[in-house]
Amino acid sequence: MKTDVRSLEWIDGKVRFLDQSLLPAEEVYVETRDYTVVADALRSLKIRGAPALGVAAAMGVALAVSDPSVATPAELDKRFSQAVDAFSRTRPTAVNLFAALDRVQHVYAGHRASGVDETRRVILAEALALQEEDAMACRRIGESGAALIPAGSSVLTHCNTGALATAGEGTALGVIVTAARQGKIRTVYVDETRPALQGARLTTWELLRNGIDAVLITDSTAATVLAANAVQAVLVGADRIAANGDTANKIGTYPLAVLARRHGVPFYVAAPVSTVDERTASGSAIRIEERSSEEVTRIGNARIAPEGVRVYAPAFDVTPAELITAIVTDRGILRPPFAEALADVAREPAGAS
Amino acid sequence: MKTDVRSLEWIDGKVRFLDQSLLPAEEVYVETRDYTVVADALRSLKIRGAPALGVAAAMGVALAVSDPSVATPAELDKRFSQAVDAFSRTRPTAVNLFAALDRVQHVYAGHRASGVDETRRVILAEALALQEEDAMACRRIGESGAALIPAGSSVLTHCNTGALATAGEGTALGVIVTAARQGKIRTVYVDETRPALQGARLTTWELLRNGIDAVLITDSTAATVLAANAVQAVLVGADRIAANGDTANKIGTYPLAVLARRHGVPFYVAAPVSTVDERTASGSAIRIEERSSEEVTRIGNARIAPEGVRVYAPAFDVTPAELITAIVTDRGILRPPFAEALADVAREPAGAS
Repeated sequence: MKTDVRSLEWIDGKVRFLDQSLLPAEEVYVETRDYTVVADALRSLKIRGAPALGVAAAMGVALAVSDPSVATPAELDKRFSQAVDAFSRTRPTAVNLFAALDRVQHVYAGHRASGVDETRRVILAEALALQEEDAMACRRIGESGAALIPAGSSVLTHCNTGALATAGEGTALGVIVTAARQGKIRTVYVDETRPALQGARLTTWELLRNGIDAVLITDSTAATVLAANAVQAVLVGADRIAANGDTANKIGTYPLAVLARRHGVPFYVAAPVSTVDERTASGSAIRIEERSSEEVTRIGNARIAPEGVRVYAPAFDVTPAELITAIVTDRGILRPPFAEALADVAREPAGAS
Repeated sequence: MKTDVRSLEWIDGKVRFLDQSLLPAEEVYVETRDYTVVADALRSLKIRGAPALGVAAAMGVALAVSDPSVATPAELDKRFSQAVDAFSRTRPTAVNLFAALDRVQHVYAGHRASGVDETRRVILAEALALQEEDAMACRRIGESGAALIPAGSSVLTHCNTGALATAGEGTALGVIVTAARQGKIRTVYVDETRPALQGARLTTWELLRNGIDAVLITDSTAATVLAANAVQAVLVGADRIAANGDTANKIGTYPLAVLARRHGVPFYVAAPVSTVDERTASGSAIRIEERSSEEVTRIGNARIAPEGVRVYAPAFDVTPAELITAIVTDRGILRPPFAEALADVAREPAGAS
């Protein structure tokens, strides 16, 4: 990214994050030593995006154990468990969150005998390593994916998968930004992405900052854009990719995939290998988070539906593998059949590519 | 409808209408003798819904010519033309609007020799006849369509096609309300219908008033509802039906039709025969209105996108005839091939059924 957006950082023993719920109206950064503030930020979408959730959870646990009032190994054990528990209850669908918590738990178990200070140090080091790995994964995804985009393309994307959603330039949006830097992108159509409007609020904001032509559309206008052959590719991120390639991503991804197929437009999922969940056989086994009805019935201070109306607000939907043209990962581009390709990259040791 | 919502009425030489742009927060009725207030109400979606647009335009022209300051036949000619012109420029897609203006022009031409007072009388009579015909058409559509709905059904609908959109109980929503009265409806899933949120603001409001179970969803959640086999039918209205059955309706209708087909759910269009435009061969010839970017970038007082972002905001999309299971009209249920069936009903004299 040409701009200096750092959505999430560790600075001087504090976590500093951009409150994304206030964008684009206000650009407010929050600094905290309190891990519960970070956990609340995940729940309330101040920090969001599957890869960023993993980094934020690891940094949050690092904050929790760095509290100087936690002095004994027993106290540290207790605080560590509380923090891991708190973060594991924030968002159920993004596998990156649980993968990050698994990693800090593994490191914790391996070092807790070394004393409180050493344990603090290695937990923080693990969080910072996760951040750096994600930034690297974004660079690799961006480079691999950009090769799929023909010069002069317009593309369509959903939700936000950029610098705000990751520790790097992004996944799907990272591909777009990389392709734009190569001069290949004409226009990016951006789904507003109801209910939380990540496309309208965040993706257009990132694209404008990067000087990339963006056209905002309501989610259901994407069908008209695809029918008009106005785009040459659809690019989305992923919150969890099952072993067979079925992909959970922001609600509204599945209909895009159906329409892309109907109109012969390639449909690409871009995500780090850490998003692949080999323990989930297929999409039907993915737990889908439901958000509060208020996210649908209120926008800002405006109430847009009658009091008392029931709401169904799943945060994600599942796109069957058969509708996905390719999955762009930090270990290269995977093509169908995905089950085999995913098993291969999941087995490969990190950093092998 | 069990409730007393009269969205549009002629009372004592005035037009009285419910300002739908303020629903559901406020229920404000406007009374006016000024036809330009009515034309503005059409443009700003205070009055909306294809059938209601036709009735409102005819009543607006009746208001225009009833002005006592318009005294001579020459003045009446001028005022009549001004009013017809003003209404024809409010909304370009709904054919009902132009059909209604054609009818008042025909009546005007046939009676202008009879004097100013008589001309005023027949224009008002024509507007009231249009209103009564639309109410009757809604009753027939409701009865015909309800026969298509199996007992115990849940259904999905888009936008608002109820009492607020017509002079009767509605088209697609009229079918749903009629089927509910017959005890057949379990739950109605309502697309919020971005950008103007007619589903969230108006359809849920009508359903709750009728005591019908409603679940509000974002537009892109409909795909998940259809994939889960949670509904047994999708019902939508129409703004213009081309001679081959291609149907222009609120943006977001086309993707619903694609997804209904994918999941084997019947997709019904409900509209009076006056919505059929035999002069338009197919959907590609339908002029699609574009709305202002502000309808997408602002909700109430909240700005939801960065300043300066480009917006593409077509008000309608076109659903190809091949995706439509049946068209429910006031002259019965039409099945494919639609070209023939539509030509038949369009030829039939009004009131013949």
